[in-house]
Amino acid sequence: AVLDVSYGERAKVHASPVARRLFELMEKKQSNLCASIDVSSTDELLKLVEKLGPVICLVKTHIDTIDDFSYDGTILPLVELSKKYNFMIFEDRKFADIGNTVKNQYKNGIFKIAQWADITNAHGVTGEGIVKGLKEAALETTLEPRGLLMLAELSSKGSLAYGEYTNKTVEIAKSDKDFVIGFIAQHDMGGREEGFDWIIMTPGVGLDDKGDKLGQQYRTVDQVIDSGSDIIIVGRGLFGKGRDPVLQGERYRKAGWDAYLKRIGQ
Amino acid sequence: AVLDVSYGERAKVHASPVARRLFELMEKKQSNLCASIDVSSTDELLKLVEKLGPVICLVKTHIDTIDDFSYDGTILPLVELSKKYNFMIFEDRKFADIGNTVKNQYKNGIFKIAQWADITNAHGVTGEGIVKGLKEAALETTLEPRGLLMLAELSSKGSLAYGEYTNKTVEIAKSDKDFVIGFIAQHDMGGREEGFDWIIMTPGVGLDDKGDKLGQQYRTVDQVIDSGSDIIIVGRGLFGKGRDPVLQGERYRKAGWDAYLKRIGQ
Ligand SMILES: O=c1cc(CO)n([C@@H]2O[C@H](COP(=O)(O)O)[C@@H](O)[C@H]2O)c(=O)[nH]1
Ligand SMILES: O=c1cc(CO)n([C@@H]2O[C@H](COP(=O)(O)O)[C@@H](O)[C@H]2O)c(=O)[nH]1
Repeated sequence: AVLDVSYGERAKVHASPVARRLFELMEKKQSNLCASIDVSSTDELLKLVEKLGPVICLVKTHIDTIDDFSYDGTILPLVELSKKYNFMIFEDRKFADIGNTVKNQYKNGIFKIAQWADITNAHGVTGEGIVKGLKEAALETTLEPRGLLMLAELSSKGSLAYGEYTNKTVEIAKSDKDFVIGFIAQHDMGGREEGFDWIIMTPGVGLDDKGDKLGQQYRTVDQVIDSGSDIIIVGRGLFGKGRDPVLQGERYRKAGWDAYLKRIGQ
Repeated sequence: AVLDVSYGERAKVHASPVARRLFELMEKKQSNLCASIDVSSTDELLKLVEKLGPVICLVKTHIDTIDDFSYDGTILPLVELSKKYNFMIFEDRKFADIGNTVKNQYKNGIFKIAQWADITNAHGVTGEGIVKGLKEAALETTLEPRGLLMLAELSSKGSLAYGEYTNKTVEIAKSDKDFVIGFIAQHDMGGREEGFDWIIMTPGVGLDDKGDKLGQQYRTVDQVIDSGSDIIIVGRGLFGKGRDPVLQGERYRKAGWDAYLKRIGQ
């Protein structure tokens, strides 16, 4: 995050075309809300995206949880919706292997993530080779710009991503200024004195719940934006427990945008 | 590893039916070799498994790199081969998300890993909820026993899995004695004084190369077995660079078995 500068200003000067496009559409749609659409069928996925499309900047997928996945049936309509509603796509793959393996996983297989996901993410645990492997896959797959987020901090109970682990992940992120656009984190990760304008995206956001039974922990929208987050990632808060995604989408969008305006002093 | 006890003896008393079966077939086939079949088509996968089947105890897959994956076309014939040649199957998924998400990833989606993989693995980075989420998925999917390996140490350059991170991963592993059968690691992880007989599986093994261009690092078979590994995981050493998998399979099997016999003093 650059705590007191607007998304629009950051759009003008960012090194990454992925970040520029994202900041621009955030400004235009007045939204820093990423919807985490964790469902098990293409139909549910597309229906939720159709409802949330107008109020979000980003759709986050776990494409490997869709039971009836097919490239033509799932990805093509999702990409169509991303054009119709002007949002970007983030596959939350959490790559976490040696460079040679993640290169294959990002580029090949049934999912071909590098072909359609504007953004993906990776853990730092295997070391710097992961960024190199993923970058090679992106360059060999498409001329479209691709962006990577490193997982610097996690929302879950007992996370090992803190202290030295987090610091070393930030060091790994510095290895590729074009490709690594920011972090999944719970706080601002600095970097401005060294010329990095990292985008901070934060999951574990919920206005009505404190957590789940498998270790998820929620903070409020104000808490995470005040901690230096640029984009709030919300899943079950939008559509879990029979919630109305249209209502909740607008509620989280407004909460996120208001907190952001307050932070930049507007 | 239990450094001076035979696989056969360990088979008799292990708490996990997955570990018992694995130790038994290792003893029977005189093999502690796991083949990492990292290819991009079902045809290549099955052909390599057909060649290596007789000399291995375990096949390790990255199922998300198979371009023409289908459950019936890829998984069913692989399972048939596992019966024909008496080996087990390990999907190297490296789960690394919150409990709720990994539960869905293990159980659902196109791959349905919990249905067919005897063994899978997970990073400790998100905390203890990951073991709980995966265990729930296994129990809800099948009556067959399932085993989990935690990634305690990695083979790649600049890995962050050392020291406190490794120790905390070992602590997480202790949370479920039935389900967690061991570690992906470069060394023995102890545990015997507390009643754990963890299986150590070690990748980054190569007799002819020192590493690759994306951070992989190789040690020899003797080095890893002497470090307390129970199973050597070999990929490109078996079939990369035009190598003959039948020749290399027998070469690595023998090297692994001889090193093991020496370690247990036979
Ligand atoms: O630290 C993290 C990182 C991520 C994303 O990279 N996530 C993901 O956010 C989403 C949170 O969903 P929820 O709002 O329903 O808890 C899930 O998809 C989960 O896998 C987290 O929940 N915590
Ligand atoms: O620390 C690790 C952990 C694993 C497995 O969990 N691996 C995997 O072993 C295999 C090594 O292949 P190679 O022998 O061809 O380098 C790859 O599939 C890689 O993803 C590693 O290479 N290093």
